[in-house]
Amino acid sequence: MDAILHGDEAALRPLVARHATLSARITLRHADRVVTMQDKPAQVMRHGQGTSMFATIDAVKDGEAQAAVSCGNTGALMAVSMLRLRKLPGLNRPAIASLFPTPTPGKMNVMLDMGADVKADAGDLLQYAFMGASYARNGLAIARPRVGLLNVGTEEHKGRAELQEAHALMGTRAEAGSFDYVGFVEGTDILSDRVDVIVTDGFTGNVALKAIEGTARTVGDLLRQSLTSTLLAKLGALLAKGALGRLQRRIDPRRVNGGVFLGLNGTVVKSHGSADATGVAAAIGLAYQLAQAHFIERLAARVASAEGAGQDQPGAGPGDTGTGTGSSPTE
Amino acid sequence: MDAILHGDEAALRPLVARHATLSARITLRHADRVVTMQDKPAQVMRHGQGTSMFATIDAVKDGEAQAAVSCGNTGALMAVSMLRLRKLPGLNRPAIASLFPTPTPGKMNVMLDMGADVKADAGDLLQYAFMGASYARNGLAIARPRVGLLNVGTEEHKGRAELQEAHALMGTRAEAGSFDYVGFVEGTDILSDRVDVIVTDGFTGNVALKAIEGTARTVGDLLRQSLTSTLLAKLGALLAKGALGRLQRRIDPRRVNGGVFLGLNGTVVKSHGSADATGVAAAIGLAYQLAQAHFIERLAARVASAEGAGQDQPGAGPGDTGTGTGSSPTE
Repeated sequence: MDAILHGDEAALRPLVARHATLSARITLRHADRVVTMQDKPAQVMRHGQGTSMFATIDAVKDGEAQAAVSCGNTGALMAVSMLRLRKLPGLNRPAIASLFPTPTPGKMNVMLDMGADVKADAGDLLQYAFMGASYARNGLAIARPRVGLLNVGTEEHKGRAELQEAHALMGTRAEAGSFDYVGFVEGTDILSDRVDVIVTDGFTGNVALKAIEGTARTVGDLLRQSLTSTLLAKLGALLAKGALGRLQRRIDPRRVNGGVFLGLNGTVVKSHGSADATGVAAAIGLAYQLAQAHFIERLAARVASAEGAGQDQPGAGPGDTGTGTGSSPTE
Repeated sequence: MDAILHGDEAALRPLVARHATLSARITLRHADRVVTMQDKPAQVMRHGQGTSMFATIDAVKDGEAQAAVSCGNTGALMAVSMLRLRKLPGLNRPAIASLFPTPTPGKMNVMLDMGADVKADAGDLLQYAFMGASYARNGLAIARPRVGLLNVGTEEHKGRAELQEAHALMGTRAEAGSFDYVGFVEGTDILSDRVDVIVTDGFTGNVALKAIEGTARTVGDLLRQSLTSTLLAKLGALLAKGALGRLQRRIDPRRVNGGVFLGLNGTVVKSHGSADATGVAAAIGLAYQLAQAHFIERLAARVASAEGAGQDQPGAGPGDTGTGTGSSPTE
């Protein structure tokens, strides 16, 4: 893998030069300006030419790069990505998908939308299901993902009107999306083994993501307080250090924080603004994997088949057959 | 404190008889029927006469009990409570408020609505702020609560239209509600010390509550796995047992699970359906404390003052001065 690094050359060159293996694989591309966390998406879209964010997305648009990674302003990155890469044909709202750990070692869940848009109607939620299932196949090697719709209860009559409608749609369209629809799921299921893909609107998804991050952090802080509260606890923590370290790595949000923009003509991975080297490396690894799997071509085929939501057209179009059955990445 | 216990007398009498101190304080009241978890709220409202749930709420309505506690079907309990106790004058939507632990020992946060209704407009969110602040004063002894509005970011321009409107309303009405409005907060703030009361609609609140519960449980499960994974870890866990036990009690959802229905002419505390003795005891303790504080009279005064949302009427009506300045519970 080679990379193009966009930004202030004077600042970046000495940092890259410190690592010989990195220097050989990185092409530095100077950008005069950056998008800040305070910039509003609409302004960046109009006046963002010349920023490192524009240059990064344009490298994907021009086919120079197969995927983009950024730790910048999420709203601006989505706006620039939509402007330059354009939505996949037939897609209404792109979405951001994130990964969540589960009790099963190595098993991760996908949830979307994490905040690309604050609202979603029933048709949008169906498209999220198709895209999330495709991502689970190509990014996580889950041949036939189980998809759940996030609600306030698992009973059929619960929730908002658009959820009732989406519930009906998913039941009839699951076969075309090559996923199993498990019905309504609740907040407790996000980190569970009950489901592989959790579908929700971007407002709810963003609140849930941050609630989960905040809880993991608070429980971790309280655990550290506890394990330094007495001499005996300190000694115990010392003995269990190896095991606790493995636990920490497993639930470390920096390792799983790559949010992927789904629904565009190009792969864009958004890493946390506060990500450290571990977090950025995880995001780059994810981008590499998706590029290798020719994910965008597969996703486009799936979105096209989801479009037949109103029609009786099972198994429409060439889909991503994924890692379960696929051998050639372009099939 | 004395209690009236509603339910199947044949089943309950031998259970109560086992505890002499309990027997002396409990009056058993037979009910032929119960509301099940599968019953739909609308059906229970129409045909629920004679159930233990109706009898429990009616005891509050008739002034026989100062507060009700139930572990039953939340939707049905809210429907029956609204039907029999009626909403406070001027209130649009009642809400369910729950408590959340924070990194500061003994400090709890209030969040509402946890799912009484799946939607809320700007006026509803303002009423939630007034009610949540009043609950924080009377239930948690926080003289001047800091109230935040849950959103997908803290920037002013973010979020749905009703949140923008509620944001403006809260800024101008905070003084009348005797709270400090801290602006938008995010999911990461729910368990933080940044805020005392988190206001959101019932759909988002319910998802966040369950996401937090699920995360705490998953992290706890993973911690247990880790601490039994090696001999060294087991030994460490044994030494740190006391400290880990204290941590577990602090974040134990059973101890903090009393959800309170706010906005009715009577105090109703809803405990988890899966609550054990510890959980039910916590819910009863909360109901007792609120009854002692004459919470409903104070809440009614606050709701009346929130009604002046469109008017320039600061500090309207007699409010709950709370535990910070108050001495007499009826002031």
